[in-house]
Amino acid sequence: MSKEQMEREQVPRISIAAFERICREQAPFFQLYGFLVDEITYGAARVRMPEDPMHIRPGGTLSGPSQMALADFALYAAVLGAIGEVPLAVTTNLSTNFLNRPRLGELRAESRILKLGKRLAVGEVHIFSDTQEGEDLLVAHVTGTYSIPPNK
Amino acid sequence: MSKEQMEREQVPRISIAAFERICREQAPFFQLYGFLVDEITYGAARVRMPEDPMHIRPGGTLSGPSQMALADFALYAAVLGAIGEVPLAVTTNLSTNFLNRPRLGELRAESRILKLGKRLAVGEVHIFSDTQEGEDLLVAHVTGTYSIPPNK
Amino acid sequence: MSKEQMEREQVPRISIAAFERICREQAPFFQLYGFLVDEITYGAARVRMPEDPMHIRPGGTLSGPSQMALADFALYAAVLGAIGEVPLAVTTNLSTNFLNRPRLGELRAESRILKLGKRLAVGEVHIFSDTQEGEDLLVAHVTGTYSIPPNK
Amino acid sequence: MSKEQMEREQVPRISIAAFERICREQAPFFQLYGFLVDEITYGAARVRMPEDPMHIRPGGTLSGPSQMALADFALYAAVLGAIGEVPLAVTTNLSTNFLNRPRLGELRAESRILKLGKRLAVGEVHIFSDTQEGEDLLVAHVTGTYSIPPNK
Repeated sequence: MSKEQMEREQVPRISIAAFERICREQAPFFQLYGFLVDEITYGAARVRMPEDPMHIRPGGTLSGPSQMALADFALYAAVLGAIGEVPLAVTTNLSTNFLNRPRLGELRAESRILKLGKRLAVGEVHIFSDTQEGEDLLVAHVTGTYSIPPNK
Repeated sequence: MSKEQMEREQVPRISIAAFERICREQAPFFQLYGFLVDEITYGAARVRMPEDPMHIRPGGTLSGPSQMALADFALYAAVLGAIGEVPLAVTTNLSTNFLNRPRLGELRAESRILKLGKRLAVGEVHIFSDTQEGEDLLVAHVTGTYSIPPNK
Repeated sequence: MSKEQMEREQVPRISIAAFERICREQAPFFQLYGFLVDEITYGAARVRMPEDPMHIRPGGTLSGPSQMALADFALYAAVLGAIGEVPLAVTTNLSTNFLNRPRLGELRAESRILKLGKRLAVGEVHIFSDTQEGEDLLVAHVTGTYSIPPNK
Repeated sequence: MSKEQMEREQVPRISIAAFERICREQAPFFQLYGFLVDEITYGAARVRMPEDPMHIRPGGTLSGPSQMALADFALYAAVLGAIGEVPLAVTTNLSTNFLNRPRLGELRAESRILKLGKRLAVGEVHIFSDTQEGEDLLVAHVTGTYSIPPNK
């Protein structure tokens, strides 16, 4: 969707609390990763993965599968931010480009919907780590597609 | 690589035991998922994800992130099966199409290298669940790229 | 869809002649590339791109964009082979891994549907060139998704 | 690469004239599509596909393969904008999400490099059409990877 459209419709269709409840009920595996939600707007979200031994890869970097799970979580939040509590939205495609080795520490992900159709939502996610100097380091870029059930 | 090439070179460059040791040392996060290796050949592998509450999604299906992690694991086994113990091979892209809802139970993944270059290996993974009738149900198709360090 | 399903349902839902007519009417740009259809079955197809100066890249290889167009054409044939003459099926995603430099000459593409749903069809395409010895050389692997209109 | 890095290094490593010459010499198939270059900066480019009957699809929209070719062209310009005249940079992956039906008329593409490594460059492309009201309509989002030869 265009930036203009998103700005016009800034009211998110779901609260952080409602999103967290849906995840607990319908996608409890996300809890294992320890993800946190910072913000959900209409068609966009900011989420985080706190540092935890389970994500660490020897040599001082972080697990690729944890990054993919984080991206899926971030997109799910952006989709529900645009369509509200629709229980059967499911990922149909997730494509990840791993760009830079993350440094140990927290990962941040920013997701946004590029196109919201009646049946499909397509979005992208940027995942950031901190550089030693405290700047954002883009560690992965992800695109994903969600299928939206007919009777939303 | 062509099927012919793979058949000519059937000797795997890594044993299951050595692959499991490398994963423990360098990619310990795979252990959290409980993955098992059934076979590694030259450029191909068969692996499994046993049923476990951590993978279950309410409604009777299995986690998407667990499927992506399984695919990454399966491709890593296929790559090391072709190049041997090369510590710094890393995933640069993983693209997953989720095709059918898996049924509860074990998932099986079959990976194979499509192209083994000096710097990149590209492969695909088919992930299967059991249908109620005990047939294979293709639940996801994954393509991935690994970057191979220069001095292998 | 499983191999078993496809074998059970081998009757293609479209003839080569009807597919070529639809392409002339609805996707005439395919004609510019000179593509030919060898076979359409239920959910699969074999097509060809004859050698032509327009596809040649100096240094003795063939254009990447021509390969992507060929893959799209091959998948379209496979999809219509499974669903029949449905005018508004459109590509929603096409992802190409370029694996080996094709040699000059004809390219062949084999497509097949991996999943045929009510709203989406997902398939893959293998593109082959000839090696100097006349063997198949896999030059590209492509996955694609088609959106199928509701009232098919 | 970060926006900050790109801003620091704004000097493009190739001129539009040199890029056009390289395309004529090494990728002449791009000429068939009629693509034009508006700007090349360090790691980014803006290009265009003028309206032409060869791209038109009955029903008043534009060819998917032409969009993929345009994205490949746009990324190639961004890559050479960052690495200069390196003849053997080749596309290894191109993944396109078709988001909205373009309207008849010109298409514009904006590409930028997300990561420039020694061996791989990864970038993204946004393709725009005009809405009836003259606003930008995002019609496709593309990610691509280029392999950079060792002795650049």
